[in-house]
Amino acid sequence: MKKIKVTIWNEGTHERRDEAVQRVYPDTIGGALKSFIKNMEGVSEVRHVSLYDEEQGFTQELLDDTDVLVYWAHVSHAEVKDEYVERIYERVLNGMGIVLLHSAHASKIFNKLCGTHTSYLRWREAAEKERVWNVNPTHPIAKGLPDQFLIPHTEMYGEHFNIPKPDDIIFISWYEGGNVFRSGITYTRGAGKIFYFSPGHETFPIYYQKEVQQVIKNGIEWVAPAFEETAMLKNGAPCDNVPLEEIKSVR
Amino acid sequence: MKKIKVTIWNEGTHERRDEAVQRVYPDTIGGALKSFIKNMEGVSEVRHVSLYDEEQGFTQELLDDTDVLVYWAHVSHAEVKDEYVERIYERVLNGMGIVLLHSAHASKIFNKLCGTHTSYLRWREAAEKERVWNVNPTHPIAKGLPDQFLIPHTEMYGEHFNIPKPDDIIFISWYEGGNVFRSGITYTRGAGKIFYFSPGHETFPIYYQKEVQQVIKNGIEWVAPAFEETAMLKNGAPCDNVPLEEIKSVR
Amino acid sequence: MKKIKVTIWNEGTHERRDEAVQRVYPDTIGGALKSFIKNMEGVSEVRHVSLYDEEQGFTQELLDDTDVLVYWAHVSHAEVKDEYVERIYERVLNGMGIVLLHSAHASKIFNKLCGTHTSYLRWREAAEKERVWNVNPTHPIAKGLPDQFLIPHTEMYGEHFNIPKPDDIIFISWYEGGNVFRSGITYTRGAGKIFYFSPGHETFPIYYQKEVQQVIKNGIEWVAPAFEETAMLKNGAPCDNVPLEEIKSVR
Amino acid sequence: MKKIKVTIWNEGTHERRDEAVQRVYPDTIGGALKSFIKNMEGVSEVRHVSLYDEEQGFTQELLDDTDVLVYWAHVSHAEVKDEYVERIYERVLNGMGIVLLHSAHASKIFNKLCGTHTSYLRWREAAEKERVWNVNPTHPIAKGLPDQFLIPHTEMYGEHFNIPKPDDIIFISWYEGGNVFRSGITYTRGAGKIFYFSPGHETFPIYYQKEVQQVIKNGIEWVAPAFEETAMLKNGAPCDNVPLEEIKSVR
Repeated sequence: MKKIKVTIWNEGTHERRDEAVQRVYPDTIGGALKSFIKNMEGVSEVRHVSLYDEEQGFTQELLDDTDVLVYWAHVSHAEVKDEYVERIYERVLNGMGIVLLHSAHASKIFNKLCGTHTSYLRWREAAEKERVWNVNPTHPIAKGLPDQFLIPHTEMYGEHFNIPKPDDIIFISWYEGGNVFRSGITYTRGAGKIFYFSPGHETFPIYYQKEVQQVIKNGIEWVAPAFEETAMLKNGAPCDNVPLEEIKSVR
Repeated sequence: MKKIKVTIWNEGTHERRDEAVQRVYPDTIGGALKSFIKNMEGVSEVRHVSLYDEEQGFTQELLDDTDVLVYWAHVSHAEVKDEYVERIYERVLNGMGIVLLHSAHASKIFNKLCGTHTSYLRWREAAEKERVWNVNPTHPIAKGLPDQFLIPHTEMYGEHFNIPKPDDIIFISWYEGGNVFRSGITYTRGAGKIFYFSPGHETFPIYYQKEVQQVIKNGIEWVAPAFEETAMLKNGAPCDNVPLEEIKSVR
Repeated sequence: MKKIKVTIWNEGTHERRDEAVQRVYPDTIGGALKSFIKNMEGVSEVRHVSLYDEEQGFTQELLDDTDVLVYWAHVSHAEVKDEYVERIYERVLNGMGIVLLHSAHASKIFNKLCGTHTSYLRWREAAEKERVWNVNPTHPIAKGLPDQFLIPHTEMYGEHFNIPKPDDIIFISWYEGGNVFRSGITYTRGAGKIFYFSPGHETFPIYYQKEVQQVIKNGIEWVAPAFEETAMLKNGAPCDNVPLEEIKSVR
Repeated sequence: MKKIKVTIWNEGTHERRDEAVQRVYPDTIGGALKSFIKNMEGVSEVRHVSLYDEEQGFTQELLDDTDVLVYWAHVSHAEVKDEYVERIYERVLNGMGIVLLHSAHASKIFNKLCGTHTSYLRWREAAEKERVWNVNPTHPIAKGLPDQFLIPHTEMYGEHFNIPKPDDIIFISWYEGGNVFRSGITYTRGAGKIFYFSPGHETFPIYYQKEVQQVIKNGIEWVAPAFEETAMLKNGAPCDNVPLEEIKSVR
């Protein structure tokens, strides 16, 4: 199996200005993600970029060399330039996997891939409990995970979540405050696979939790391009616009 | 049941310049569609506009007064202004149903709702036979239709069709030249329902065929908003961002 | 639209022996269901039978005259004779809709339609709160319902629920004790539509609650056969086993 | 990755009595399947049994030691004893993958797993062409396969196919005689994965074709249990029937 090249795109805005975030994630959220992703067996390389890098972190060269993009963002969605959103979009349709975490639900790229206002959901910051239930135990993203696990303090994201019908629902979350959420979901768009996972917040140490790390690692493996797809999907459909008699001879 | 207000948006470019199209559809394609839609029992009003009307046929006032938009387009996709695509998009997410016909698969609005390059498919103009197979006989869009029906002369649209996994597949087409196609498919985006149906071409008299008319009428009924959805979907999620103790009292 | 003939099959065992049940449902659970179903506009007739009727309530004549079977059962699943399960199964595949309520998840007929051990789930009787979240607000079964509603005292049914991937998930329930459940789900089998809805227990007055009644009425409308499907589905596929040359002439 | 133990169950009736079949498959259909499955990298063992072996080839010991069952059957479906069907069923729900080939669509086990009359389809033996279109090019079962491939002489299986909505459709077949078919489909039941693939017939040399072999090998890999699922799915749900106060302490 070809080794996976992962790029972590972490917005990086909170880390520059919010002391509370710096305390929980002294090496930034992207750094915390990198610390466990870099040890994955099937991964050959992990880069970590942010909004404050060259071309907002989305150079064509980097995206072309990325198998899986892990995307964390929150307060700076609007600042991401449309031309870079377009680049990510084309790479996903071309086969690059994407793992969107937590508040990335409101990113331009998730909106564009879904075709809905994905930012519409309920939310509450009350440091409440979240229990993540595994409702699809044979899905590869559930590998090695228990029936459910607890996140002691979380930001609530609740239904109704304005998304297209997911291809698969892997996790449904329960919140102490009375809400539920389809917290782990997948889509395919063109040759690209998409996994959205909601747990993870800038001031709760959720990305240090083993089960959460396991889910993210499983997600990376699942969205990674597993083989070279047909040329058609990569380049657009060849035109068969020839006389029927010619087609008949080969049909 | 509330009566449905239908707006037929027919690009209208072929009808202005191609004699072959004028011969087959002397009253334009939109006119041919209107002739059978206007007699639907549940329909109270049918308007017919085109790219050559005010604001390309997409005035906010008209869209706001439309329950179902029937969309036929082919050679002028690129000319439709992005601001109007945005208007249609918002209305669909808000509950307006949309029926996309034939080459509308390559329209900006279908692309935007799908989140893929929906223009990628195989095609061939060879006046070949198409047999439309009903693979979902209890779906409302299959009402009154036989197991299969023949279109004597068609333009072929073939797989692979670069679409997201459909919510439902109603029809799969067989073509004389050796191709197959998921020719009748549905999606939901926000509060809006979407039906795409591929048969129909500017120089074949397909929209005069009874079975095709039945499918389109069924599609209009199915995408029409059936009831007033929750306020949330229409206006965005109310924010629950209050202290947990307050929530607990009502959870 | 053809009027719907509903048959309520209510096991009836609890009502014969448990005083607690008799207190909550003096007219039996089936009677409580009938009291609001009989007033549905689209319903022409409602019968109410039980395990203690002729042929356990499943005479061929009755099933043949039933458009929608509403099924409540709990402690006597094993007593239902296989030959009657077979009858119900054939009627569902033939087009009779079925609404399965609460502990009917463990019935032989639901098992047979699903092809899994549908009795596998978590459960707890602690009179806790259940909050039913509407995650599919444009689905006909969500008509007239709010974003969520509260059941003050419920029996918990929790994930993992060992069911096939539902065609659609309409409701997800939250429980005070920490669980979640896919509480409103649909399937299609042959020409028959299936709706399972988990709320409802023999000692909590859940079937008197307006929102629950609305869900059940919507479910009945949705599973009811909406039109005469193709002969194929009703009688088995006609055999096309003829020489290709003959087929070609009509293909 | 754990190596896969495959058991090929080939009915074996045709091979005993039909000279035409013996000529095409001198080593039986099961032998032809074994010849390429045994060389799969991830496979550690391949057994080949038939209806004429001990306990019709379905001893509990063998099934317990099988990761993936490949099932080919045709004329003797009715002879397979219900108690063995029950064994296979329990093993699938427990995690054994199953690949069902061609006329296994009418087997008791596929019926039981689907919950429909899966034998209902159209068919025709006319040695016509079949073109298998890949409509899900990023699915693992499509690995290494082209956009489409031709089977020069096939038995036609056509829609409507009376199956539940597939979890995924990988292939749709086109037939010279005018039919289409969902020819490669997947389901999950309990912990078990299911792949049905229709090409393959006792008197056409279809199982010698490279593309068909690739599909079957991909199918075996995909249905194989990839990891140890949660105990719940294997043993039934643990009962949480304890007082709410106890649950609360751990929720």
